[in-house]
Amino acid sequence: MGRKLTMDMDVAHSASASAAPHPPLDQIPAHIETLADYERLAAHHMDAATWRHIQSGAGHGQSLIDNRSCFDRFQLIPQMLTDMTGASTRIDLLGQSYAAPLFLAPVAYLRLAHPDGEIAAIRAATAIGVPMMVSTLSSFRLEDIADAARAAAEALNRPCPPLWFQLYWQADRADNERLIRRAEAAGYGHIVLTIDAAIKRSNFALPHGITAENLRDMQRISVSSTPDDGQILFGSPLMQSAPTWDSLSWLRKTTDLPLILKGILSADDARKAADHGADAIVISNHGGRVLDGLLSPLSALPLIRQAMGPDYPLLIDSGFRTGTDIVKALALGANAVLIGRPQLHALAVAAMPGCAHMLHLLRAELELAMAQLGRTSPAQLGPDLLWSP
Amino acid sequence: MGRKLTMDMDVAHSASASAAPHPPLDQIPAHIETLADYERLAAHHMDAATWRHIQSGAGHGQSLIDNRSCFDRFQLIPQMLTDMTGASTRIDLLGQSYAAPLFLAPVAYLRLAHPDGEIAAIRAATAIGVPMMVSTLSSFRLEDIADAARAAAEALNRPCPPLWFQLYWQADRADNERLIRRAEAAGYGHIVLTIDAAIKRSNFALPHGITAENLRDMQRISVSSTPDDGQILFGSPLMQSAPTWDSLSWLRKTTDLPLILKGILSADDARKAADHGADAIVISNHGGRVLDGLLSPLSALPLIRQAMGPDYPLLIDSGFRTGTDIVKALALGANAVLIGRPQLHALAVAAMPGCAHMLHLLRAELELAMAQLGRTSPAQLGPDLLWSP
Amino acid sequence: MGRKLTMDMDVAHSASASAAPHPPLDQIPAHIETLADYERLAAHHMDAATWRHIQSGAGHGQSLIDNRSCFDRFQLIPQMLTDMTGASTRIDLLGQSYAAPLFLAPVAYLRLAHPDGEIAAIRAATAIGVPMMVSTLSSFRLEDIADAARAAAEALNRPCPPLWFQLYWQADRADNERLIRRAEAAGYGHIVLTIDAAIKRSNFALPHGITAENLRDMQRISVSSTPDDGQILFGSPLMQSAPTWDSLSWLRKTTDLPLILKGILSADDARKAADHGADAIVISNHGGRVLDGLLSPLSALPLIRQAMGPDYPLLIDSGFRTGTDIVKALALGANAVLIGRPQLHALAVAAMPGCAHMLHLLRAELELAMAQLGRTSPAQLGPDLLWSP
Amino acid sequence: MGRKLTMDMDVAHSASASAAPHPPLDQIPAHIETLADYERLAAHHMDAATWRHIQSGAGHGQSLIDNRSCFDRFQLIPQMLTDMTGASTRIDLLGQSYAAPLFLAPVAYLRLAHPDGEIAAIRAATAIGVPMMVSTLSSFRLEDIADAARAAAEALNRPCPPLWFQLYWQADRADNERLIRRAEAAGYGHIVLTIDAAIKRSNFALPHGITAENLRDMQRISVSSTPDDGQILFGSPLMQSAPTWDSLSWLRKTTDLPLILKGILSADDARKAADHGADAIVISNHGGRVLDGLLSPLSALPLIRQAMGPDYPLLIDSGFRTGTDIVKALALGANAVLIGRPQLHALAVAAMPGCAHMLHLLRAELELAMAQLGRTSPAQLGPDLLWSP
Repeated sequence: MGRKLTMDMDVAHSASASAAPHPPLDQIPAHIETLADYERLAAHHMDAATWRHIQSGAGHGQSLIDNRSCFDRFQLIPQMLTDMTGASTRIDLLGQSYAAPLFLAPVAYLRLAHPDGEIAAIRAATAIGVPMMVSTLSSFRLEDIADAARAAAEALNRPCPPLWFQLYWQADRADNERLIRRAEAAGYGHIVLTIDAAIKRSNFALPHGITAENLRDMQRISVSSTPDDGQILFGSPLMQSAPTWDSLSWLRKTTDLPLILKGILSADDARKAADHGADAIVISNHGGRVLDGLLSPLSALPLIRQAMGPDYPLLIDSGFRTGTDIVKALALGANAVLIGRPQLHALAVAAMPGCAHMLHLLRAELELAMAQLGRTSPAQLGPDLLWSP
Repeated sequence: MGRKLTMDMDVAHSASASAAPHPPLDQIPAHIETLADYERLAAHHMDAATWRHIQSGAGHGQSLIDNRSCFDRFQLIPQMLTDMTGASTRIDLLGQSYAAPLFLAPVAYLRLAHPDGEIAAIRAATAIGVPMMVSTLSSFRLEDIADAARAAAEALNRPCPPLWFQLYWQADRADNERLIRRAEAAGYGHIVLTIDAAIKRSNFALPHGITAENLRDMQRISVSSTPDDGQILFGSPLMQSAPTWDSLSWLRKTTDLPLILKGILSADDARKAADHGADAIVISNHGGRVLDGLLSPLSALPLIRQAMGPDYPLLIDSGFRTGTDIVKALALGANAVLIGRPQLHALAVAAMPGCAHMLHLLRAELELAMAQLGRTSPAQLGPDLLWSP
Repeated sequence: MGRKLTMDMDVAHSASASAAPHPPLDQIPAHIETLADYERLAAHHMDAATWRHIQSGAGHGQSLIDNRSCFDRFQLIPQMLTDMTGASTRIDLLGQSYAAPLFLAPVAYLRLAHPDGEIAAIRAATAIGVPMMVSTLSSFRLEDIADAARAAAEALNRPCPPLWFQLYWQADRADNERLIRRAEAAGYGHIVLTIDAAIKRSNFALPHGITAENLRDMQRISVSSTPDDGQILFGSPLMQSAPTWDSLSWLRKTTDLPLILKGILSADDARKAADHGADAIVISNHGGRVLDGLLSPLSALPLIRQAMGPDYPLLIDSGFRTGTDIVKALALGANAVLIGRPQLHALAVAAMPGCAHMLHLLRAELELAMAQLGRTSPAQLGPDLLWSP
Repeated sequence: MGRKLTMDMDVAHSASASAAPHPPLDQIPAHIETLADYERLAAHHMDAATWRHIQSGAGHGQSLIDNRSCFDRFQLIPQMLTDMTGASTRIDLLGQSYAAPLFLAPVAYLRLAHPDGEIAAIRAATAIGVPMMVSTLSSFRLEDIADAARAAAEALNRPCPPLWFQLYWQADRADNERLIRRAEAAGYGHIVLTIDAAIKRSNFALPHGITAENLRDMQRISVSSTPDDGQILFGSPLMQSAPTWDSLSWLRKTTDLPLILKGILSADDARKAADHGADAIVISNHGGRVLDGLLSPLSALPLIRQAMGPDYPLLIDSGFRTGTDIVKALALGANAVLIGRPQLHALAVAAMPGCAHMLHLLRAELELAMAQLGRTSPAQLGPDLLWSP
């Protein structure tokens, strides 16, 4: 009988988001202490339609809720009085070293949150030592985003974190090849193919001036007429242009870069991904935006880790907001965690500094949690620290 | 103590439904994207007493709530990157082919929602390729409804979906026979005997001008006085006129049409139904309207499928509102799903086009879900795609 | 952190109960269809202090809530198309026959709800064929209540249901003996000793004019000063006057009437009760009024039935409000069910006719449930009709 | 998705706490019947910032909620008709006898609640026969607090309960030694080392005039700049000054007093504590204030009791508010229970008499619960009285 009343205050905020959103703040207010604080504030810094679009989930929002509540199924068992000398959050992944098990997830059109969009996000990420997966649907050109990262690192006299490019499969294979070549040329070292959002419903119209800069001149498909046999979607051009395992085989032959498959939720698909040459996967239900009722990535994680053995790299996203969320995923077998919507929240509230602060908060929370749990490295985060009621 | 506060926004709507309901809309608003949207709007297109009547459940409404929340006990595991060439929702049932595993459930008095009632509903269903089970308690004559279906199919140059007639058992056997003969003569090819609502409480008075058109001149029974031994219902004429297994045996001898028994919730009764000649059953708790606290059909389904083997046709209703609801039932062994109250919601909001749109939404959601789950036919929907927290 | 917000609308009603309560109604409004309706209305027919007193539970109200929500742990599996000829709710209990498995529980001071108090209640019960357990703390003399029952039966030309007297253990054994002799002389055929409320906290002051009519001239004890060793309650006269198993042995020798022990929640105590000569027990947590957090009687019932075998009479109360509540208890092994607070609700709303109507509703709901479940007698209500999610 | 809406009325109160708090009451109002009543009232007797500080939990408050809701996982099975002659709440602990299994937990800065702070609290505790664990962060000197206890006992002509001193590990070992020598000299007989709050986040600024009286002239550390490798906390001086198992070994050599370790949540750490010479432990998650998502002490308790055998002393705190909370912990193996935040609530509402009344309520509730459950001593509270739904 209709949409369940979710007991989440931000949903209520979304309804009251005013038509004239506040501009980004010049200073980060002292009372912002968590990513949830950014989310609460962000409702006032976006117009109502955009806010609804970025916050929404598919269907009745069950997956959206479950992506948060799944963390409550696990509680934490600390080890006290541990000597934390030499403790570190550093991890190795696909042959490279990262300061923390933390990524910016590929998110479309960051200019929805702030005019500086992806440029601001990658500057913030670089300053905090966090890599960003740049979306095919970025609102700046992928080349400009890569340049911004390198410039930021140079200005801070820091190494630039490795660059990752996320690919949405295009109907025309030539377009896919063109995107990959551009990414390679711009210095991206990883290709992340998103496979769980080939087909989805949306009523949201991009505001004037925001476009998919990487896809200018490329062909895009949507469903307009109904094909044979009363079927609506099946048999349509949209359906026919969706990627398959063959697409992955083609992609594996087309580039030598590490390939990461994003959007896996089962052990079978994880095995197939590895068999088709994927170097890593991202366990994800696309933040609950695609099909309502999909199991949460945290639920799928232990099954996939068991199937893939201890060494295959597993990344994860959808619903991560705190340091203990990250701890729980690592304890269940993830190598690293991607952060999605909070990028938009932090950019809307306080531009580049907001995004950097948001990542600083997460890194600080992760260290604090590890210290309080008495674990000195990500490798020490195992299932022994989890308790289920 | 007292009625639990249900956390369902529409219940709140019901209280605020105004005395002067809005007329049906001329156009379907763009923001109607789900059946829940129709339900929310419908509260404003019906008078308060009718709205309360159609939305209500028996007792404290536990079954009404459980009929929706039971779906949340299952989450979905997708298969990614499946080649969907040739995908279809088509099913075979009792020797005939249907475009989708979807039926309009028998619902009494559709004129409560719109003056065109069953005529509008069957036109909408025919346009979308969905068969309708016509209720004994229809507010148009069963012959006129059948004619409307054929005319609609002809106008669209489409095959008319098979016709189904739902029978409420009448106190006088001759009346039952008369109804069956009329249905046969009008071209109905199936008889659905509803067995779970022989006795129920209701305070609702039909508005002026709405009547059980099929039952003019037939005798109807209600309880007025108390029989012996202080018993209230037991021993009353109402109790004596309720159908029994003998009624089914008689019915089986009286018609050659496929017989479907609607209102089964146990494996024992399913077996008995088959033994008495029922060709199929509808697992149902009558939308939570008859006895509060009955288990939900989705809970009963796996037990019944196990008892009946893989081939016996099992239909199901009560609480279905989305494409993933349908997927879950098919995964647990159902052959097809019936949609009840949403007919009333859609008719009240936007007449025949509303009802057609509502069915279009469901068919589109079903295809979308199958595509996102990587299953190309209803037969591929099995328990392997379900995960329970 | 304080009192949990219970999601029950009547608790909110309780807060808004006005200082000047409505008088009882002359007519029962047509919209009263359930016991919950009586409860909702009753808030307006009692002064705030009395309403809070009768509705309250011990501590934070966990048992009060659990006494209702425990029923939701069980759902019902119907048997369809059963021939209900000869169906009946009649039961045998301790050698006598009762029209339905239904009792009025002993409730103190019914004049809190209506000036006619116990006299009105027993007239109503007699009219509906339901026996009443008359409380030691009745606000009319036990002799007058017995007379009222016999007069009502005679006026209706019906047999008078057997009379039951509930005993609160008195500090002075002579007082207990005096009460028993008076009950025997007045025609009571059963003694129900309540053992679970010897010691409880209460701030409620009886309104002027309402007294424990049966206890005039008897000694009553409360705690005022603190005994040795810093203990508050232990060692006090109140503690010393509480009944023990020795009290039961004495009672068994003092009367030949059937003895029933009310307030048992464990199999061990049930066995001890039988060993000490109790002819039956009432499983009860005193409506959640005595110690918060006690398990609900419905939870204790199956363990006690298993321990006592199929023949020992088990009655039950605390939280029963509907026909299906009764069905669930009988399915789990109870022989009969006691109704407590609803007596006060119905009397406050509509005096004697209200109380009779309330019992009529329950009996009708019980028959309706049995008919819909396809069970023709209380003996057919077994665990096979229960399903747990 | 932001902060969950907690369904706890006091959280709402906290928002409405006015800027000008009420002064403490001169008299305890008759309607204060539980610790929850004190909490509700306290919101009006503190300024908003202090109230938020003392009520808050870490992160999203999951542990804060779970510390209360964990008690609901257990229900109570009574033994009826027990002879309670000689019943007592008295316990032995570390060779001394206590009137009840009840302690005041170490709480920092009681002057936040009332100008008389720790002096008022220990007078109240002494009057009720409850020992107090005096915090390193007390707002009076530990010597003055000990004197106040002895003076109160003398005035009442009662024995003074043993004195306990709680130690927060100081960066400079000489400071730890100095604190221990002072505590020994002042007559404290136990040292409680808190190990679970060495590192935590806080934005709260102490009001003017409230200081850590025991730490005048001692060095205190906080994090200001970021160390190497992009780490924020790891490698900082704060991290380096946290206690380790070596600190405990040093402490064991430094004093002969019984040593108690506070903040253990796992069986492994409990064993290590005993191996390092701890004479007892306090199972605690610091009232949910340190790391959100830690399991509740009540969840950890049975595992720790099983690991440590029946004789090792286990104390517990975090979330205890009622007599039945205490009963449940003792039934699961605890020897005694510490009460934290309610000290602040009671002091704010009604100064020293409030704190004494609060402890009186708890002791009375404990006796009442034991009487209603039919258990005559703490030793009789075992797992047989617990039932889990």
